[in-house]
Amino acid sequence: MSIFKRRKGGGGSLMQQPVAGNGLLDRRLLLQRGVAFAGAMTGAAVTAAAAEPLQDDPWSRAQGITTVAIEPRSRFEDNVKRTLSNPNGAPRTQHARTPHHMLNGTITPNHLHFTIIHNGTPDIDPDKHRLVIHGLVKRPLVFTVDALSRYPMESRMAFVECGGNSAPLFSKEPIQANVQALHGLVSNAEWTGVKLSTLLEEAGIDPKAKWVIAEGADTAALNRSVPLAKCLDDAMIALYQNGERIMPGNGYPMRLLLPGYEGNMCVKWLRRLKLTDQPAMTYYESRNYSPILPGGKAYKFYFLQEVKSFITHPSFGQTMKGPGFYEISGVAFSGTGRIAKVMVSADGGKSWGEAALQGPVHSKAFTRFRMPWRWDGGPAVLQSRAWDESGNFQPTRSEFVAARGETRNVPNVVGFPNQHYNSITSWGIAANGEVKHVYA
Amino acid sequence: MSIFKRRKGGGGSLMQQPVAGNGLLDRRLLLQRGVAFAGAMTGAAVTAAAAEPLQDDPWSRAQGITTVAIEPRSRFEDNVKRTLSNPNGAPRTQHARTPHHMLNGTITPNHLHFTIIHNGTPDIDPDKHRLVIHGLVKRPLVFTVDALSRYPMESRMAFVECGGNSAPLFSKEPIQANVQALHGLVSNAEWTGVKLSTLLEEAGIDPKAKWVIAEGADTAALNRSVPLAKCLDDAMIALYQNGERIMPGNGYPMRLLLPGYEGNMCVKWLRRLKLTDQPAMTYYESRNYSPILPGGKAYKFYFLQEVKSFITHPSFGQTMKGPGFYEISGVAFSGTGRIAKVMVSADGGKSWGEAALQGPVHSKAFTRFRMPWRWDGGPAVLQSRAWDESGNFQPTRSEFVAARGETRNVPNVVGFPNQHYNSITSWGIAANGEVKHVYA
Repeated sequence: MSIFKRRKGGGGSLMQQPVAGNGLLDRRLLLQRGVAFAGAMTGAAVTAAAAEPLQDDPWSRAQGITTVAIEPRSRFEDNVKRTLSNPNGAPRTQHARTPHHMLNGTITPNHLHFTIIHNGTPDIDPDKHRLVIHGLVKRPLVFTVDALSRYPMESRMAFVECGGNSAPLFSKEPIQANVQALHGLVSNAEWTGVKLSTLLEEAGIDPKAKWVIAEGADTAALNRSVPLAKCLDDAMIALYQNGERIMPGNGYPMRLLLPGYEGNMCVKWLRRLKLTDQPAMTYYESRNYSPILPGGKAYKFYFLQEVKSFITHPSFGQTMKGPGFYEISGVAFSGTGRIAKVMVSADGGKSWGEAALQGPVHSKAFTRFRMPWRWDGGPAVLQSRAWDESGNFQPTRSEFVAARGETRNVPNVVGFPNQHYNSITSWGIAANGEVKHVYA
Repeated sequence: MSIFKRRKGGGGSLMQQPVAGNGLLDRRLLLQRGVAFAGAMTGAAVTAAAAEPLQDDPWSRAQGITTVAIEPRSRFEDNVKRTLSNPNGAPRTQHARTPHHMLNGTITPNHLHFTIIHNGTPDIDPDKHRLVIHGLVKRPLVFTVDALSRYPMESRMAFVECGGNSAPLFSKEPIQANVQALHGLVSNAEWTGVKLSTLLEEAGIDPKAKWVIAEGADTAALNRSVPLAKCLDDAMIALYQNGERIMPGNGYPMRLLLPGYEGNMCVKWLRRLKLTDQPAMTYYESRNYSPILPGGKAYKFYFLQEVKSFITHPSFGQTMKGPGFYEISGVAFSGTGRIAKVMVSADGGKSWGEAALQGPVHSKAFTRFRMPWRWDGGPAVLQSRAWDESGNFQPTRSEFVAARGETRNVPNVVGFPNQHYNSITSWGIAANGEVKHVYA
């Protein structure tokens, strides 16, 4: 077997063109095959080989593990897991957050999809579960899971995000926490199910109907009011999540999926849809998800999850391994439609370069963005800022705070703003390679 | 609580237009919101409610299950699993097949992705694993997982299929087995990793190099010869599968992904890439995956997984629940590019209607197709036939057999044809609702 040794400084006569300050590189050059890549890599990611012959590792010298019916992950990935707010199941809400800093691509594996559950996960027998459509309809209908499975289905990518995702960024001071803690209440999956419009049309909509009250089979019977127009647009009764039946924490055997709308409205363990002429003003829409504004007023309804992006690599808690090439990468999404553009800065917003978007870009779903960067070893502040196809864009933090306030900044009002945060996240990189959460 | 009762025969003044014999319906009407849908459903999928008030189910009356870090599936889904050819890990090949008849959409969840493993799954420590590029290169290189993780990445949907998938259809008589047994050696995922061309360009390709010999870290050091042109086209060193690090059975911590090429070539646990001027004529390319033709000759190389489709719903082992509306649905894919068209027949190929394709259609990846159908309760034979964007299409079984033979049909030749079957699959539906595998 040969002896291999990485020789430094080979190749690289063509260096990457910078597109913005502090080392952002031209992604188009990198997308061309190999042009100047050796140059970009020099002294960076390639590890020099130990100057010794390659040998068989222990796992190459013995019969391996026997295949089982449900493949488990590698034991070396045990740390890739959701973080829990209430691991002992005390009688209050339980959060489980997605570890975005350890994932890549756009799909959130089902076992890592975020969940927020208020009364524990109901252990539903799908053969006994029923979905009822009633209220202002001509023909009240009852559906079993088997019956729904015969209807025309569709599949689509969609993110689901809690209205409270990113809430730590309302804090006056940047909370030192990783992207899982800050932004872990959003996930992305391929959902498959029956269009709600199909079922509503079959029930026959009374012209007086304007709202649909969706109710779950959890112990709290969590319910939310959804505008009928949304139900007739892209709402789905989702039965499958990334190919298999949806997970218990995501509503097994069925949930309401309202692409782009607040996760809490995408009622899980869905059992009733009641058509009405007015909203029900339920707990979660009248109290919990009505953001309070600096002047003391509150939004009556705030359904939309607005355009957002955050960088997952590098991000808080990771340590840079010396100067050289890195890929800056993250996810962007908008409840309004497709992501049109993501700009990335390495100098805290003084200059910006346009990131590559992984296509095809789906509407109301994660889009992975990537930006080549050569870190010179000095201080840097990484930011991403997304635009959607409707022209909406992420505000800066100061713009956002002026409009929406900060935590404990609301005079004469009980409670504080803690919903629907969507401005820019900044990662500060120190010369020693540490990555901190900063406001910039 | 109200009493609900499904009233039969309501609505339905506009009936679906048939597009082909034996009940295939016009998908465009169904895609329009609600038009005539009540008509299509009458007597079909909607279950009449028991004429009694709705009550809370047991799971709605008590605190549910506590959330854990890695979400488990519902216990009612325990039967959704891979089937194993060698569950005790005898020292020979182990197959695990994907249960396509129980999945929907396009993603294969990681724990259900098919695997074929010849010496058990190596239990690789990612911190100790190395990838070496050597042979006809200017600079031999060694990469750790951490080093690779700093390179520019890309994500893409891609199917991986064993050359032996669908081999039971070489049998002279239709084998009575479900879609998992017949077609379970293909799966589809979002893969994320580093383009191989990036690494090869950095190593510096010697002009004499024409092939790349890829070798795994399993005990057999499984190796295959890959044309350099493919390596410089869309080959990837895949590190992530559906968002998380790839599964042990799929090559953890890295595999070669050659979109559209035979699964066996997508070498798992990849540890060496040697550039050469000729193929290595390894075991798997010279013996196992060289289909033998009726005349006794064999293909020297057969890399491409050609255009294929199969119906997953309804399919063998399922029982139709009386006449009425059903959605016919399945997957189509081609190693050449995008699926352009899928035609569906309910009368054994006498007449055909065009299925709806779930978009966006990805190149060299699963495309879900769907076709509305009203079963009249009589005998039916369901078929699907796919075309790709290059004009390739699935042959009929008789066309295929004429060119490639059947099992035990090869004179004077040891062995029999058992690779690269891609013709039409037919499901015969009897009046009692049973679904059989037939040749038509």
